[in-house]
Amino acid sequence: MEPVTPVDLAAFKQAFRRHAAGVAIITALDASGNPVGFTATSLASLSAVPPLATFNMARSASSWPAIAETDRVVIHMLGVRNRGVAQKLSGAQVERFEGDHWSPGPHGLPVIKDVTSWMVGHIVERFPVHNNAVIVVQIEEGDLGEDDRPLLYHERQYFQPGEFA
Amino acid sequence: MEPVTPVDLAAFKQAFRRHAAGVAIITALDASGNPVGFTATSLASLSAVPPLATFNMARSASSWPAIAETDRVVIHMLGVRNRGVAQKLSGAQVERFEGDHWSPGPHGLPVIKDVTSWMVGHIVERFPVHNNAVIVVQIEEGDLGEDDRPLLYHERQYFQPGEFA
Repeated sequence: MEPVTPVDLAAFKQAFRRHAAGVAIITALDASGNPVGFTATSLASLSAVPPLATFNMARSASSWPAIAETDRVVIHMLGVRNRGVAQKLSGAQVERFEGDHWSPGPHGLPVIKDVTSWMVGHIVERFPVHNNAVIVVQIEEGDLGEDDRPLLYHERQYFQPGEFA
Repeated sequence: MEPVTPVDLAAFKQAFRRHAAGVAIITALDASGNPVGFTATSLASLSAVPPLATFNMARSASSWPAIAETDRVVIHMLGVRNRGVAQKLSGAQVERFEGDHWSPGPHGLPVIKDVTSWMVGHIVERFPVHNNAVIVVQIEEGDLGEDDRPLLYHERQYFQPGEFA
């Protein structure tokens, strides 16, 4: 195996396309009280005690101004049955909350319906890195929905899990 | 859906078990030049330009002293064929580099053989959060191996991807 050119963008993208990810939706309220949100493939657990999770985003994202100013977000874990809402929350920003796929939850925060779990957390860190940010959230409350196989994303396609490896 | 008790540890763990993740291996050299490494399910892309990735770890982990002091790590993306090495690198720390499943690569760093891709990166940030850290890596070089379906982890089991969702 020969090393590729340093910082070869196409190779980096191809390498990361070979990584698979679970799919989550992050929601919040903007300064005017309007719901914002996006589909994320970077959600990760950071610790269990205290319960901390992280996600990454570009500071050029449409939801960034809200995430930069608000105290709390809702993190939703998606099952295979939630593929439609994953696509909706990664589509045109003005259409993401058009419909009855969400309702106001704790603190008035937008909670997506029928997900496998959702958790309200307060933002404890926003670490800037170039034009991006790593967001650290401490979980405060939440609930489990009906279980489902987890929705996966890989090679720019949604997948469902298969056999044990 | 009724909110659970705030900071209910069992509920947090159960919610995160409903999230699926791709599987990666992170390796480095410790201050004595010995290989260290671990299997990670928190690897995420942060940006493409510059090429940045993040992973999370406990500062109580056996590999933390090396990650805290070294300049560079190797990030490996695993395919289904790499399940054995994923288990080895999450097993007893003294046995993780016993065998011929790795060889020295750029800068003498341990590179795991036969993975779907590997990338050498330098650590640009180590953000501490309680007894954990978010590590930000800027990719410098790497290579793609033979392609494979991505190895997945969910509900404490390794999986392979299934059908499109």
